[in-house]
Amino acid sequence: MKRTLGTCYYPEHWPRDVWEEDARRMVEAGLTWVRIGEFAWSRIEPEPERFDWGWLDDAISVLGEAGLKVVLGTPTATPPRWMIDRHPDMLAVDRDGRPRKFGSRRHYCFSHEGYRAECARIVKLLAERYGANPAIAAWQTDNEYGCHDTTISYSDAARRGFRGWLEARYGTVAALNEAWGNVFWSMDYQRFDQIDLPNLTVTEANPAHSMDFRRFASDQVVSFNRLQTEIIRRHSDAPVAHNYMGRVTDFDHFKVGDDLEIASWDSYPLGFLEDRGGADSAHQRAYMRQGDPDFQAFHHDLYRAVGRGRWWVMEQQPGPVNWAPYNPNPLPGMVRLWTWEAFAHGAEAVCYFRWRQAPFAQEQMHAGLLRPDSADAPAIEEARAVAKELSEAEDIAPAGAPVALIFDYEAEWAWEIQPHGAGLSYFDLVLAHYRALRRAGLSVDIVPPAAEIPASARMVLAPGLMHMDAALKERLARSGARVLIGPRSGARTLNMATPVPLPPDLPEMDVLVSRVESLRPDMPMPLAGGGCVTGYREEIETAAVSLLELEDGTPVAVRQGRTIYMGGWGDAKALDRLVSLMAAEAGVPVTPMPEGVRLRETATERFWFNYGANSAECPAGELPPAGVLREIKAT
Amino acid sequence: MKRTLGTCYYPEHWPRDVWEEDARRMVEAGLTWVRIGEFAWSRIEPEPERFDWGWLDDAISVLGEAGLKVVLGTPTATPPRWMIDRHPDMLAVDRDGRPRKFGSRRHYCFSHEGYRAECARIVKLLAERYGANPAIAAWQTDNEYGCHDTTISYSDAARRGFRGWLEARYGTVAALNEAWGNVFWSMDYQRFDQIDLPNLTVTEANPAHSMDFRRFASDQVVSFNRLQTEIIRRHSDAPVAHNYMGRVTDFDHFKVGDDLEIASWDSYPLGFLEDRGGADSAHQRAYMRQGDPDFQAFHHDLYRAVGRGRWWVMEQQPGPVNWAPYNPNPLPGMVRLWTWEAFAHGAEAVCYFRWRQAPFAQEQMHAGLLRPDSADAPAIEEARAVAKELSEAEDIAPAGAPVALIFDYEAEWAWEIQPHGAGLSYFDLVLAHYRALRRAGLSVDIVPPAAEIPASARMVLAPGLMHMDAALKERLARSGARVLIGPRSGARTLNMATPVPLPPDLPEMDVLVSRVESLRPDMPMPLAGGGCVTGYREEIETAAVSLLELEDGTPVAVRQGRTIYMGGWGDAKALDRLVSLMAAEAGVPVTPMPEGVRLRETATERFWFNYGANSAECPAGELPPAGVLREIKAT
Amino acid sequence: MKRTLGTCYYPEHWPRDVWEEDARRMVEAGLTWVRIGEFAWSRIEPEPERFDWGWLDDAISVLGEAGLKVVLGTPTATPPRWMIDRHPDMLAVDRDGRPRKFGSRRHYCFSHEGYRAECARIVKLLAERYGANPAIAAWQTDNEYGCHDTTISYSDAARRGFRGWLEARYGTVAALNEAWGNVFWSMDYQRFDQIDLPNLTVTEANPAHSMDFRRFASDQVVSFNRLQTEIIRRHSDAPVAHNYMGRVTDFDHFKVGDDLEIASWDSYPLGFLEDRGGADSAHQRAYMRQGDPDFQAFHHDLYRAVGRGRWWVMEQQPGPVNWAPYNPNPLPGMVRLWTWEAFAHGAEAVCYFRWRQAPFAQEQMHAGLLRPDSADAPAIEEARAVAKELSEAEDIAPAGAPVALIFDYEAEWAWEIQPHGAGLSYFDLVLAHYRALRRAGLSVDIVPPAAEIPASARMVLAPGLMHMDAALKERLARSGARVLIGPRSGARTLNMATPVPLPPDLPEMDVLVSRVESLRPDMPMPLAGGGCVTGYREEIETAAVSLLELEDGTPVAVRQGRTIYMGGWGDAKALDRLVSLMAAEAGVPVTPMPEGVRLRETATERFWFNYGANSAECPAGELPPAGVLREIKAT
Repeated sequence: MKRTLGTCYYPEHWPRDVWEEDARRMVEAGLTWVRIGEFAWSRIEPEPERFDWGWLDDAISVLGEAGLKVVLGTPTATPPRWMIDRHPDMLAVDRDGRPRKFGSRRHYCFSHEGYRAECARIVKLLAERYGANPAIAAWQTDNEYGCHDTTISYSDAARRGFRGWLEARYGTVAALNEAWGNVFWSMDYQRFDQIDLPNLTVTEANPAHSMDFRRFASDQVVSFNRLQTEIIRRHSDAPVAHNYMGRVTDFDHFKVGDDLEIASWDSYPLGFLEDRGGADSAHQRAYMRQGDPDFQAFHHDLYRAVGRGRWWVMEQQPGPVNWAPYNPNPLPGMVRLWTWEAFAHGAEAVCYFRWRQAPFAQEQMHAGLLRPDSADAPAIEEARAVAKELSEAEDIAPAGAPVALIFDYEAEWAWEIQPHGAGLSYFDLVLAHYRALRRAGLSVDIVPPAAEIPASARMVLAPGLMHMDAALKERLARSGARVLIGPRSGARTLNMATPVPLPPDLPEMDVLVSRVESLRPDMPMPLAGGGCVTGYREEIETAAVSLLELEDGTPVAVRQGRTIYMGGWGDAKALDRLVSLMAAEAGVPVTPMPEGVRLRETATERFWFNYGANSAECPAGELPPAGVLREIKAT
Repeated sequence: MKRTLGTCYYPEHWPRDVWEEDARRMVEAGLTWVRIGEFAWSRIEPEPERFDWGWLDDAISVLGEAGLKVVLGTPTATPPRWMIDRHPDMLAVDRDGRPRKFGSRRHYCFSHEGYRAECARIVKLLAERYGANPAIAAWQTDNEYGCHDTTISYSDAARRGFRGWLEARYGTVAALNEAWGNVFWSMDYQRFDQIDLPNLTVTEANPAHSMDFRRFASDQVVSFNRLQTEIIRRHSDAPVAHNYMGRVTDFDHFKVGDDLEIASWDSYPLGFLEDRGGADSAHQRAYMRQGDPDFQAFHHDLYRAVGRGRWWVMEQQPGPVNWAPYNPNPLPGMVRLWTWEAFAHGAEAVCYFRWRQAPFAQEQMHAGLLRPDSADAPAIEEARAVAKELSEAEDIAPAGAPVALIFDYEAEWAWEIQPHGAGLSYFDLVLAHYRALRRAGLSVDIVPPAAEIPASARMVLAPGLMHMDAALKERLARSGARVLIGPRSGARTLNMATPVPLPPDLPEMDVLVSRVESLRPDMPMPLAGGGCVTGYREEIETAAVSLLELEDGTPVAVRQGRTIYMGGWGDAKALDRLVSLMAAEAGVPVTPMPEGVRLRETATERFWFNYGANSAECPAGELPPAGVLREIKAT
Repeated sequence: MKRTLGTCYYPEHWPRDVWEEDARRMVEAGLTWVRIGEFAWSRIEPEPERFDWGWLDDAISVLGEAGLKVVLGTPTATPPRWMIDRHPDMLAVDRDGRPRKFGSRRHYCFSHEGYRAECARIVKLLAERYGANPAIAAWQTDNEYGCHDTTISYSDAARRGFRGWLEARYGTVAALNEAWGNVFWSMDYQRFDQIDLPNLTVTEANPAHSMDFRRFASDQVVSFNRLQTEIIRRHSDAPVAHNYMGRVTDFDHFKVGDDLEIASWDSYPLGFLEDRGGADSAHQRAYMRQGDPDFQAFHHDLYRAVGRGRWWVMEQQPGPVNWAPYNPNPLPGMVRLWTWEAFAHGAEAVCYFRWRQAPFAQEQMHAGLLRPDSADAPAIEEARAVAKELSEAEDIAPAGAPVALIFDYEAEWAWEIQPHGAGLSYFDLVLAHYRALRRAGLSVDIVPPAAEIPASARMVLAPGLMHMDAALKERLARSGARVLIGPRSGARTLNMATPVPLPPDLPEMDVLVSRVESLRPDMPMPLAGGGCVTGYREEIETAAVSLLELEDGTPVAVRQGRTIYMGGWGDAKALDRLVSLMAAEAGVPVTPMPEGVRLRETATERFWFNYGANSAECPAGELPPAGVLREIKAT
């Protein structure tokens, strides 16, 4: 298979007379794909039911004739202003009860039936018109679901939808009262239509109430997306993708992904470093112009799972962006490194956002491959270099990784609803484990909680899964791999209650969490032999073998058979020790990485990447800053 | 009198078939009291006017027959969902104007007349049914008034109530305009119905307006509570209590207490350390598993005053809680220490919250005496130890303390309304004085501002009383005790105006505060001889003797006769110096405490407590961490 | 011309029988001016259309007969409560959509037509009654426009006004769509009445939308003020002033100033140091009792420009204030220093706020010249000293400064709308340049962006002007002065778009900003030879001569002819180097200042001021703390 490059283009932003030249320069730069259309509703349908298809027909034709493949986006992330006149209550409502106004993008509530009908209408028209167009080689639904905190809405439409969702789930209100434990604090309901959304309560709402609302909100994204894919498929054979974001966890991407052929995501390494990485400021300083060495790779592996193997980077940062607290230039070479890293993790295509920097509106400080004056911006040269390298080298051969890491969106919601200690986050916990694996030079497959454990996995890590159903426990127990479970695994039933018998209640292991505590971040508990438990710790009753202990001998991590239970949040050193122990027992060789260097293995190669700002020595040779080294494995 | 233990129990949370066993285990653990019912409205009256008394009759019978004494709570802190259908406007409204929704607890506005009538109705039914039941040995009204910031509401009901309250207070709007100084900024009113609540003003509201609103809000709690006590008393001779919280100061507890036989409070030492202690992080680290060494004792002494001698701990933390930013395990022994400390300060009973940890809903991370799986949790063993010790030892003999400390809820509101410097808080000021007294080993009686000075007091501390009426000044002047007044004492009239002549205007002392300033916390002003003034300082004109001076000789604390005026906020060292000076002159012996050790004297004993995490030497011997030492006084 | 002193007085606050004595003491203290009336609406018109003029007639008479000149304020900043009954929708609405309630001051929306009519009515009555009164020597409109964040309102009245303003500006909605670039994100409008205010959008609004809203909001202040001045002028020949605040930049003061004879401002050095100076805490500690050494001077120079030469300090801080986070006493001597500094910068009058400290309502902690008990407060002695010095010395002779610094309110809004890096502020950038000039001992004239460059200027600094029209570029190019431009100059068109050709697009200089980046504040980029670029940096393409370079030789500041372009935000050291280079080439002698010392030159004198808390040596001799030294220049 041929890995390819692309870009994002907005013909409606530019004079008609530059389109051919733009297309020609794209092809000349080695690009294959061009994504268009996803924000163009007001130019396709300037007034309700009055359409202007001409320019879009024309643009697709120009791009197609230049030899480019078009990804056509549905424009549903930007309903035009007249839509608000038709559906004044379609706006999402924030946690404080305020409608989120027109004037930017994503100004809709996923639960609004009237807006869903409008989306079906426009998607049908697009699919009918372009479904058979040979230039249309893929589709994108909407744009960045959940971005700008838009998954969750407290609107009337959401309230109605939630009540229906609850009735479908529980059947009777008595069953809901029982499932939620509403006897506590006299929270019993008599009718479903008494149930409100869990915002603005006097103190925290019932966690079962909050959890069901989060599930409902996620399901609304799934069904909103499915509405579009079903229509497109009636008219087109081209694959359908959605462009997810980094660290957006408010909806279950695996479930949305089930309705798509391709997962894609929008990779902004420098923006995410400042805005979402959860890193401290020393780390942010060290990687200011390179991005976090693990954040992109984590999402590559995550979205490979979401796409069941097929995934793209739909938007790749090519220079400073406009939206992070600070927006520095990338270190020269990083655009190439980021691109190759995506390919090493299996991406089919990497598209740069955007072709030409817009000189107007919200994103005018967002770099493109061209400057606003159409001169080359620095990134285009790195894109050309990748295109050339792609054309000259062997294709990448994917391979299953020796390590599987389970990621569960519901666990993220559960930790958000009941963090127990300020600042504790499931995403950070999983990323901390991922970092430890990467510091050991290990390649990782991310696995949904409902999926089979991959055959290649000799180690499975499943930290922080607050709910584990019996089937998952069973799959872990019977996989031949070494398994790491905990902290907090199985700590809640499906309804956010504490199970009795107490967690983790593993079939293969004699361990019981008798009490849990959260700790100030400045009061870590040292382990004998190095490392700490920090933020969260469990008291465990067990007859299993101690692997890590507090300095007074209290067990923290214990092993029985092939399963390790970790009763606390380990710091980097503690996790390094755990990974090292597991890998040794699993017979998985580790390669300790120099600071900033990362390794990704395919079936035939080792890719080395240097995220550091200085040169680094690695077993395959010297890596300059932003260096990429492609090493053929001995066979 | 026999000091006793108890617990809080929710029979409605558990299967009927464990009630007898639970009761048996309570008795076996040495418990006397069991509090029930305070959140059970939805199970007593599942639908309006349809009652289910059976289970409650049954529960009281089971508990009573096991030999336990029942405290029956009125369920008015948790109106069921159908109540909101009947009174949609009964919800409190927050400062931003948003109704605080159903879905947790305390979702009512104290001013809503319709809800008050519902409360009277349910309390009457409870009192009629159980008033003569021999198992019912005490009552509790509602639950934790003011918790979750619920004293103050900006609802329509509160607005109506406030206007009526003002009319009753001032008679005419002209009198109100004059009292408030509404000529300033043209704030004059023509009619009472023009007066709004003081939220959302463009800049700060008139402090007189804010102060009257705070008084009104407090009075609404008082009358809400009195409505219940009057009904209960018609049907029951058992004493009535309310369970107050730690550092809730939005209503005048002395006034609520006037309508109750018993004051009680809910003591969560670890939660308060993180959440309300006002301590710095070094202090929080040092006492992470023990709690602040003075916070509990302060509230014990405060609520002894509120209860006019009769007081309980209604809820005692037995392990990690769920609601603080961080929720660590207590150091082994602390549950015993906290319990004995309460008794040493005169508590009649200490009840652990809760019997069994709930496996569902909001508080499932809150430890109990039993784990969710009914196994013993660590605290129950410490409770058993206390029960045994109680049964073996002499009863505690209360005694008046040599030091009186005045605490005034209105002063707290005055400082909140006009702190003058960011972060300055009356509660913190009083607690700082209390800490200094405790570091000197002194036992303290807290005294309401309207009460007589206790005869036992040879020292009286009255810091920060922004308003002092003539009677209080007179009481202080004619008490034979040494008296400490200031800073900011008498700085406001009843209507939050600056008095002329200028404060403090003391009959017995020639001192005048000519100018005040607030200081950055990082710019303390050193005193000659040690210590600092920090945050707040006064320029004083006086002919009195200087006790503490700035390094340039400017007087800070001065004495005339038996009265000291302190013209600034002293740091710990400055307050230690003041306490030491006063005690020496008053002939009160002091006992400097080792770090973390505290002393409480009764008529016959000295109780030593070690809040430190390490052993400490005290005059009575060595105290291990969490150690309690009971020393009989020489007679 | 005679420089004079004055004070602010509220006869309506005090008993009638002290007015004569107050007036006598004012005169005795050497005061000339007394400002009255600006908050007195409720006492002039206690009920709609019922007037009580007697007391005001009387007060003006008493003050006039004592020999004082009266500044009469229009009372429109404090509409009485009955006004809200007449116009319930006149309240401004905050960003969150909440009406800002009655109960303090400035509770009106500038766009409300009904309230404007009421203002016209009361101003007309005042002007008719007192326009010819010989005691009335000046007028003040309203009070502190914009204070308490009151320029911007999101009310219905503002929405209506904004739509009309847009229609007047653009004519057609198609022109607006084109100008704003609404094709981006389908933000096109079909009708003006679809356009909302840019608050509460899902993510940031179109910057062009925000910019036009900020212009509209500013224009509303201008027309609101003009409504009053036009009426006053029909009845009075006395000059009209407004009292602006420090660092209020939400409206264009130059445009308001065009309708007034005199600019004045309210100078609170200690309050501003804590609240608005943008200084770090070390700086705040060093100047805690003196105020920032440049903040007042900057505003003096700014308001001299706003007043086209005629300006006052209408309110001068005389002691601790009530509204800053911390409110310390001034160092003795500072009230005198602040007063003389204003005169050295050309003030005609300095009035102390207020005469007697009010013992009631919101500002009772705000010091006056008298204490609440009518005794002298410390400041009055310093005022007397200035009065005596004024009477004994020659008048100050104004002179054009050798340096001009351009300040543009629209640039401030542009940076606020698109700061690009967190915390970057145009005001701070300009102030940083001003500080560097002052550290070099240079006197400065501030110049509006639409004005001619003063003939005296041999150096012109124009940092951060995000929009520069062709005329301004032309004026700078043809001035004979050395000119400093950048960073970010000319980076936006009038409609907040990026211009093509790329900025700065200067006629006289070959320089192009090809890319910009923002930097973490803890990641400054060092310059060869000292200093740093911090926060914001540009890549420039140029053939001009390098003046400042990064350590790798990348140009940062370049010169061509007489123009310097600075491609980044220089720290203090970098700006000192730039100022030094420019001054040397311009032949302007510099005088490096000791820490805390500042110099202001007039035609005949050098005024030296010591803001430091310690004595300092300067060329003219030793300056004690708070010292003022008046040195006659050699001729």
